[in-house]
Amino acid sequence: MNRRLFWIAPLFLISCGGPSAPPPATRTSAADPLPSWNDGPSKQAIVAFVNRINQEGTADYVPPALRIATFDNDGTLWTEQPLYFQFIYTFDRVKQLAPLHSDWKTRQPFKSVIAGDLKAALATGDKGLVSLVGATSTGITTEESDAAVKAWISTARHPKTQKLYTEMVYQPMLELLGYLRANGFKTFIVSGGGIDFMRPWTERAYGIPPEQVVGTTFEAKYAFKDGKSTIDILPAVDLIDDGPGKPVGIYRTIGRRPIFAAGNSDGDREMLEYTTTGSGPRFAMIVHHTDAEREYSYDRESPIGKLDKALDQAKTANWTVVDMKQEWKVIHPFQK
Amino acid sequence: MNRRLFWIAPLFLISCGGPSAPPPATRTSAADPLPSWNDGPSKQAIVAFVNRINQEGTADYVPPALRIATFDNDGTLWTEQPLYFQFIYTFDRVKQLAPLHSDWKTRQPFKSVIAGDLKAALATGDKGLVSLVGATSTGITTEESDAAVKAWISTARHPKTQKLYTEMVYQPMLELLGYLRANGFKTFIVSGGGIDFMRPWTERAYGIPPEQVVGTTFEAKYAFKDGKSTIDILPAVDLIDDGPGKPVGIYRTIGRRPIFAAGNSDGDREMLEYTTTGSGPRFAMIVHHTDAEREYSYDRESPIGKLDKALDQAKTANWTVVDMKQEWKVIHPFQK
Repeated sequence: MNRRLFWIAPLFLISCGGPSAPPPATRTSAADPLPSWNDGPSKQAIVAFVNRINQEGTADYVPPALRIATFDNDGTLWTEQPLYFQFIYTFDRVKQLAPLHSDWKTRQPFKSVIAGDLKAALATGDKGLVSLVGATSTGITTEESDAAVKAWISTARHPKTQKLYTEMVYQPMLELLGYLRANGFKTFIVSGGGIDFMRPWTERAYGIPPEQVVGTTFEAKYAFKDGKSTIDILPAVDLIDDGPGKPVGIYRTIGRRPIFAAGNSDGDREMLEYTTTGSGPRFAMIVHHTDAEREYSYDRESPIGKLDKALDQAKTANWTVVDMKQEWKVIHPFQK
Repeated sequence: MNRRLFWIAPLFLISCGGPSAPPPATRTSAADPLPSWNDGPSKQAIVAFVNRINQEGTADYVPPALRIATFDNDGTLWTEQPLYFQFIYTFDRVKQLAPLHSDWKTRQPFKSVIAGDLKAALATGDKGLVSLVGATSTGITTEESDAAVKAWISTARHPKTQKLYTEMVYQPMLELLGYLRANGFKTFIVSGGGIDFMRPWTERAYGIPPEQVVGTTFEAKYAFKDGKSTIDILPAVDLIDDGPGKPVGIYRTIGRRPIFAAGNSDGDREMLEYTTTGSGPRFAMIVHHTDAEREYSYDRESPIGKLDKALDQAKTANWTVVDMKQEWKVIHPFQK
């Protein structure tokens, strides 16, 4: 929610019909667990790390209980351009809910979103975005939120590729998740995105169940009425799971320091630092978006997924930087 | 932290030496997964529920991913008398830390704890207890907290039985945890106790890893200094995971409504209600402390683990009430 957002590429928010999603890609191969990775430095570093912690009887051996791996979501497991998908969902939801809120027609930033003038809507800055997310994602029950997200994610399409958003996941990262799990890791998402936005689909998209999703949370309240019990999501932020909030989210929900972490932006810097400054073998990686043709190319100057301080720190801290263009054979499953 | 505490049985807080803990009890048997349960109504209800959700092809079948079971800790998985063990830890810790805090000698409730006058200390009420917990469990890093709890739990002994606190677990509940896990359940603790107090030992005691422990939390902050990263526990309560806070804790950390829940006091009422008012097969149980000889006997009038409203609701809501005295062959592993 605290992500700065000053620029936006052309957006086409209208969901359009099309063929249904292809079946989920095969995530690992018996011969090579990471077939979509070229045999470059990143793949070699990942495999060397896993082999290292598997050496029973050595000081580097890590028992399965301590094999915690945390992954950022936006820009690390799926695309985050031209805009975090949760914001696209939010804009779609404002338009969907507009008939129930007559005041939105004259109130910013709602007015601009309804009119389709996203540039004006985004010009209202963080405060405007927070009010949009608050108005659309709070004041409802967790079950209502779940239903709304599921309805959107099963039909809305990415403005550039026209694919479902869940098809915008990264094939090499699906393979990496599977490879780590096959080696005893418990894989978690630790994202600045809202837990209510992620949990409805992460199990199907990544094999990561709701209880392994750490994200930005709102306050919530238990309610019981007419024989029905609900959790009501309140319009007050509880934890912003971004930047220094990520280690805090890890503490709250996981309670162990990860030994493996993956991110792609400065919002992941503290999580990678927390991961790699523990004792014993540690691994951190950054997905560097270098492929303008097959995906997007951005780093230090990008308002979305800005990668600047973390890219510098990667050098001194010995974090693995994945060059998407050079190291990934395919980006998305549908490109295979 | 909001538990009311007006009365306290004689307490002997001095840890004494003794033989080391016996090896962990065998938790299940191939022939009978619940050998420490008499063949009474509770055991029959548990087994009938598990058989029911295992019937593939029927409307009652529950896929493994949805098999979430939540357990209260104090009074449900281990003893909570004569006083929540976390409070005993807190008092021991005050005495241990006293040399570093010269002002405690003249400040209540610290003064009374140091002098061994627990009755006076407890007379300071909730506010006093909160200040004790805050002073001993916050302002330290998660790793310092972990080390302090581990040191205490491996040596401190229960005033009545002289057993280690982790030996005060309930053998029938260990078997129940194992039985549910063998049937595809993911088992969680959802306790009013602090997560920092529970996580260091729940995996060894119950087979429940830190990431499956939901509890009362303090605010926390990430810090990086001299190449070291820490999570600092701050003296501000984040979530009181008790009463209506339990469904909120479940929402935050688990993100799915449990289908099975166990508790023993009014602090569990909302969790059981939340569990059993979902759709499909549901199971809730209450451990009723009826055995003054082998453990403790208390319910409606007890300041610790008060069971009053939940006991009434059990009748109308069809929750299973376990009569410890009648239904449990043994209470603790060491009584086998």
